[in-house]
Amino acid sequence: MFRTPDTPPRTGPVRLGPTARTALRPATAAAVGAGFWAARQEVNARVGIPQGPFLLESAGNLHDLRLAAGGASGEYRGDLPFMDSDVYKWLEAASWQLDRLHPDGPEARRLADDVERLIGLVADAQEDDGYLNTWVQAGKGAGRYSDLRWGHELYCAGHLIQAAVAHHRATGRDRLLDVARRFADQIDAVFGPPGSGKPIDGIDGHPEIETALVELYRETGERRYLDLAGYFVDRHGHGLLGGEAYCQDRVPVREARNVEGHAVRQLYLLAAAADLAAETGDGELRAAGERLWSAMAATQTYLTGGVGAHHDWEDFGDPYELPSERAYCETCAAIASIQWSWRMALLTGDARYSDLIERTLFNGFLAGVSLDGHTWLYVNPLQVRDGHTDFGGDQSARRTRWFRCACCPPNVMRLMASLEHYIASTDGGGIQLHQFASGAFGGDVFGAPVSVSVNTDYPWNGRIAVTVDEGPADQAWTLALRIPQWCAGFTVQGADEGADESREGPQDGWLRLTRAWTPGERVVVELDMEPRLTDADPRVDAVRGCVAIERGPLVYCLEQVDHPGGGLDDLVLDPTRPLAVKHRPDLLGGVTTVLASGYRREIPAAGWWPYPSRPGDGAERTGRATTGGPVELTAVPYYAWANRRDGAMRVWLPTS
Amino acid sequence: MFRTPDTPPRTGPVRLGPTARTALRPATAAAVGAGFWAARQEVNARVGIPQGPFLLESAGNLHDLRLAAGGASGEYRGDLPFMDSDVYKWLEAASWQLDRLHPDGPEARRLADDVERLIGLVADAQEDDGYLNTWVQAGKGAGRYSDLRWGHELYCAGHLIQAAVAHHRATGRDRLLDVARRFADQIDAVFGPPGSGKPIDGIDGHPEIETALVELYRETGERRYLDLAGYFVDRHGHGLLGGEAYCQDRVPVREARNVEGHAVRQLYLLAAAADLAAETGDGELRAAGERLWSAMAATQTYLTGGVGAHHDWEDFGDPYELPSERAYCETCAAIASIQWSWRMALLTGDARYSDLIERTLFNGFLAGVSLDGHTWLYVNPLQVRDGHTDFGGDQSARRTRWFRCACCPPNVMRLMASLEHYIASTDGGGIQLHQFASGAFGGDVFGAPVSVSVNTDYPWNGRIAVTVDEGPADQAWTLALRIPQWCAGFTVQGADEGADESREGPQDGWLRLTRAWTPGERVVVELDMEPRLTDADPRVDAVRGCVAIERGPLVYCLEQVDHPGGGLDDLVLDPTRPLAVKHRPDLLGGVTTVLASGYRREIPAAGWWPYPSRPGDGAERTGRATTGGPVELTAVPYYAWANRRDGAMRVWLPTS
Repeated sequence: MFRTPDTPPRTGPVRLGPTARTALRPATAAAVGAGFWAARQEVNARVGIPQGPFLLESAGNLHDLRLAAGGASGEYRGDLPFMDSDVYKWLEAASWQLDRLHPDGPEARRLADDVERLIGLVADAQEDDGYLNTWVQAGKGAGRYSDLRWGHELYCAGHLIQAAVAHHRATGRDRLLDVARRFADQIDAVFGPPGSGKPIDGIDGHPEIETALVELYRETGERRYLDLAGYFVDRHGHGLLGGEAYCQDRVPVREARNVEGHAVRQLYLLAAAADLAAETGDGELRAAGERLWSAMAATQTYLTGGVGAHHDWEDFGDPYELPSERAYCETCAAIASIQWSWRMALLTGDARYSDLIERTLFNGFLAGVSLDGHTWLYVNPLQVRDGHTDFGGDQSARRTRWFRCACCPPNVMRLMASLEHYIASTDGGGIQLHQFASGAFGGDVFGAPVSVSVNTDYPWNGRIAVTVDEGPADQAWTLALRIPQWCAGFTVQGADEGADESREGPQDGWLRLTRAWTPGERVVVELDMEPRLTDADPRVDAVRGCVAIERGPLVYCLEQVDHPGGGLDDLVLDPTRPLAVKHRPDLLGGVTTVLASGYRREIPAAGWWPYPSRPGDGAERTGRATTGGPVELTAVPYYAWANRRDGAMRVWLPTS
Repeated sequence: MFRTPDTPPRTGPVRLGPTARTALRPATAAAVGAGFWAARQEVNARVGIPQGPFLLESAGNLHDLRLAAGGASGEYRGDLPFMDSDVYKWLEAASWQLDRLHPDGPEARRLADDVERLIGLVADAQEDDGYLNTWVQAGKGAGRYSDLRWGHELYCAGHLIQAAVAHHRATGRDRLLDVARRFADQIDAVFGPPGSGKPIDGIDGHPEIETALVELYRETGERRYLDLAGYFVDRHGHGLLGGEAYCQDRVPVREARNVEGHAVRQLYLLAAAADLAAETGDGELRAAGERLWSAMAATQTYLTGGVGAHHDWEDFGDPYELPSERAYCETCAAIASIQWSWRMALLTGDARYSDLIERTLFNGFLAGVSLDGHTWLYVNPLQVRDGHTDFGGDQSARRTRWFRCACCPPNVMRLMASLEHYIASTDGGGIQLHQFASGAFGGDVFGAPVSVSVNTDYPWNGRIAVTVDEGPADQAWTLALRIPQWCAGFTVQGADEGADESREGPQDGWLRLTRAWTPGERVVVELDMEPRLTDADPRVDAVRGCVAIERGPLVYCLEQVDHPGGGLDDLVLDPTRPLAVKHRPDLLGGVTTVLASGYRREIPAAGWWPYPSRPGDGAERTGRATTGGPVELTAVPYYAWANRRDGAMRVWLPTS
C-alpha cells in the first residue's frame, strides 16, 4: 500500500537504558511509508543530506578538520568556534538516513562513502589524548577549555557523540563511536566537581554535551557517562560562567520557574534533564521539566510551536511577550523543543507533549526548510511587514542556501531523517500513536511483538486508518491514538465495532481502544478538520484584536503574492463570514488553502503624526479607519511560506 | 521673577555661519530661569556634570588617556573602542555649563579646574601629527584607520571637535580647539575622494564627525572643514564599508526613502545633512531631510518621541513596527532626534520639527535620567511586563549608575546643559518661541535687539505669559508661539488686545502676533490641558486595541507600584469613563497624575495552551476573559517612571 524504506529503521534517538523508568518506551520498529512526511523525508534524502559534504567543503568545515589533522595548509576558514558541530550534525543525519536505505543499494553506497570519508577526517583530526576541536587546535581559541562561556568545545563534543551513537545504531560500526568515546573519556578525566580530583569544575556555555552523554551511556552501558551528564546538568545555574541566563547559568534547573535565556541552550539542557529523570528516576528533575514545559507552552510559545522571542541573544522573552514580526523562533529551537517534548512524552505518557510536537513539526519546524530542500530559514517570524527590506543574511525573511552560522540546516536534516522515531511508543499494555503518518510501527507488549499499519492523507484529511498487523493472540491490549488538542470532534469506526472493545474518553488526550485484536482488524478514526479561527490569550499584547486561521494541525498565513493590489497589513478578516476550504494540487507542492472574507482597511491621510488624540471625557468616538471593498483572503499553510517571492506575510489577522 | 543663570549663555550648539540660508536663526540670548526645565538643569548642574570626572576615572577612560600620553603604566582599561568619546561628551557638557555660571563663582572655578585637567589629559595624549585615539594608540586596534567600520576613530574625533567648539564658545579659550583642529587637519590630510591625492577614500561606521566638522567650520570660518563634512556625508551609502544599513552605508542620504539601520548613526548623519543644507543651500539634501523626517515621524517613532525599535543592532524597525516592550529607544537616539529636528526647524521654519522636539524632550529623552540625577536608562521601553526579571545591565529596565557602554549619560548632560538653545529663534520679522519654559530669550530683528520674558508653570499648567522686554520702537514685528500639535484649543489674552494686533490662525502650528510692541507689554496664551486618550494608527499592530493617556506634552504610564493586588498587564482602561487630574506635590518631585477608571481582567484557567480556537463558521462567540471589579488607575508621567522600585510599567492600555 505504501513505499517502505528499504530497511526497517532500528531504534533512533532516545534508546532508553535497561533500568529507565518511563511511562512509555519508543517503538522499536517505525517506518513512514507514504504521504506528507514521506514526501518531506524524500526531499531530505534526495536533496538535503546529499548536498551536505559539498556545502561543508565550500564553507570550510572540512578544510578546518584537515588543517587540525595536519593534512592541509592555509588559514583556518571558519569564523565561528563551533563549525565542527555542523559536520557532526550532518554525520548524524546521514547515519539515520543510512539506517533507512538498503545497504546494498547505490544510494546507500554513495552516502556510506561520504560518511566514511568525513569520519576519516574527524578521526584524523583527533589528538592523541582524545581531544578534538579544530578551532582550538588551529590556535583560534585561547587554549583548551579556557573559554567555556563561548568556546563551544563541549557543545561540539556533544554533537560528535550524538553522531557517533547514531552511526553505531544505524551501521553497527565502531569507528566514529571510538572517536567519540575517546573524547568523552578525555572530558571525563578533566571535568568534575570540587574534590573529585579533576582539574576543572565547569560547564559549557551552550548545553548539548549533557543529553549526548546520556545517549552515550545508553549505547555503551557505561554508567560514568550518565554520571558526567548529571554533573554537567546540575552545575548549571551556579555562576560558574558568571551567572548569565544566556548560558543557562542564572538558576539551577531544579529551581527554575520559567524557561529563560538562549532558547536552544535552554531546551537542550532540559532535554538532558528529562533524559536523566528517565534513566535515574530523579523525581525533582522530572517535576522541574513538567513545570518548565507547562510555563513555556502557556506563556512563551508561538502558535506555530516556535519558541524564542528575541533576536537579541536569541533568547526567550517575558511571559506573553510574543511579537509576530520579531519572533526569532530559530529553526534549531523548534527542533530542540521537539526533542525535549518527546523525552517528556515518554517519561510521563502525557499527550500534551505530543500535541506540541505535532504543532511544532507541521509549522515552526517545517517552515525551516524550503519545499525543494535547497534553502533554509534560520528564523521563523509570524509576520513580515509591508515595507520590509531586510531580505538577506542569516536571520532574514528569505530562504538562504547556507548560513554563516549554519547550525539549522544539518539540524533539520537529522530530525527529518529520524522522524519516524517520534511517532509511536509502547507501554506494558499496548501501543500509542502520537503522530499520524502512513507507515508501520511496532514494539513489544507483554513481551510479544505488536505492530500496526497506518494509512492516512493527514494533514489534508482527518481520516486515519489503523490496521493491526501483529499482536499477542487471545489477550486484550490497547491501541491508543492521540486526539489532538485542536480537535473539536472525532468519530471512530472499528471493523468489529463494539465486540470486546472498551473505550475511554479522550479527556486526557488519548483515545484508548482495548480489545483482543485479530491481525487484519482495522479501526478508522476521523478527526474533524473544519477550519478554525484562533484567538490568543489576552495577555499576548502583540496580537490583540487579531485571529489566526488553522485547520487540523496546520497554522495558516497570508502572503503578499496571493493578495495583489495593496499592502498585506491593511487587510482585515471578517470573522462573521464562514471560512471555506479549497485543495490546490497545483500550489506549493499541493496544499489545502483556506479562503476567508475580509476587506482592505482604508486609512485617511492623517498628517505627520500617527497618534491622534481625543478628549478623555468619556464620550465615544469612532476610529478613523474605514472599510474598503470586500477582499477574498487566501491562506496557505505557514510551513510553505517564502517559497515563492519576497514579500509581506502574516499569521495573525486583524478583525477590525 | 525667576532665577537666571549667573551669566547669560551665549549661542550654544548650531551657530549658523554667515552665509547660511535658513528660515530661522537660533536666539542669540537664551536663559531658562525657573520652572520644570530649570529644575532639571539644576540637577544636571549639581549632580550630573560634577560626577563626570569621578565616573570617567573609575571606568578607566582617564587612565587610558594617561596611558596614551605615556603618563601611566598598566593595561588599557576600556573594553570598547569609543571610550574617549565619553570624555569628550562630558567636556562638551561641562563647557555649556561653564557658560551658564558666573566665572568668578566657586562652582565655576571647581568645574573649570576639572575641565582644564581633562583637557590637559586629552592634549597630552595627542600625537605629534594630530592623531588622537587611545584605543588605537594602546595597540588595541589594528592600526590607524584600519577598521573604519567598527573602530570609531572619526566618531571620537567628532565628539572631540564638538567639545572643543563648545569650550571655545563658552570660554573663548583656544586650548581644546587647537587640539581638535590639529586632529581635524590630520583627518583632512588623510581622507578624500579618489583623485584627491589623499590616501584613504573612506567613512566612519558611526557618523558624528560630519556634523562636528560643520560646527568646526562655523567656529573657525575654515571652509575646508565644511567641504570635508560634505564629502563624508555623501560617501555614505556607496558600499565603502560593505553596504550595511547598520553603518549607514546601504543607500546614499540623497536617495533614501526611509530612516534605517542603527538609529543614532542614522540621526547624527541626518543632522549633518541638515547642517550642510543650511550652510550651502543644498536643496537636494534639504528635500532628503524633509522626506526622511516625515517618514520617521509617521511610521517609526514611538508616542514618547523615542526611536529605534530593535535591541538587535540598535536599529530602526520596519514602518509601523513599534513594539512596546522591546522598544529600544536609546536615550542617545532621542538626543540625536532632537539635534536633527532642531536643525530642520531652523532650516525650514516648520513647527512640526519643534512639536517632535517637545514630545521627545518631555518623554523619550527625559526618561533617560533619574529624578535625582544619579542614575540612567540606556533603553526606554514603553512597557515592562509582569514577570519581567531582567533588571540589570546596560539595557535593562532599571536605572543604572553607569554603563559599560556609557554613551548616554554624558549625552544627556550635554543636551541638558544647552537646553535653552533649543527654545527660541528669530527671523527677519520677529521672534519664535518653539518651547515653553520660564526664561528670557532674544535676538536681532531688523538689526535691532528683541527680547522677551516667559513665565509659565508648563507642563503642569497651560498658561504661558510672554512679556516684551525690548524691541524696535515704532515698528511692527511678530511674536510667534508654537501651538503644539497635541493642543485641541487655546486662548490668547493680550494686555492691549485688539489694538494694532494682526493674528494668523495656527493652521501651520504658529500663533503669530504682529504689532508694534511696547516694552512691558504682555500676552498670555492658555493651552487646553485636558487629559486625552490617544490611539495609534491601526498599522501599529503592537498596540491594537489600546489607548494611551496624555496631558499637554506629557505621555503617561501606569507603574506596578501604584497598582497593588495583581499584575499590571491585566488592567483594562474603560474609555467611556472620564479622566480626572490630580496634582501631587509629594509624588516623584511633584507631578500631575491622571486618574482613569478601569477594571482587572479575569482570565479563567485555560489549560496548557494559550490559543483557543472556535469553528470558522461565521457564528459570533464571546471571548473568555471576564470583567472583574472596578479599579482606579493612577497614571504618572512617563519621564518619571522607574524612580521608585522595579516592576511592570505600561504606556498603552487595553480597553477591553
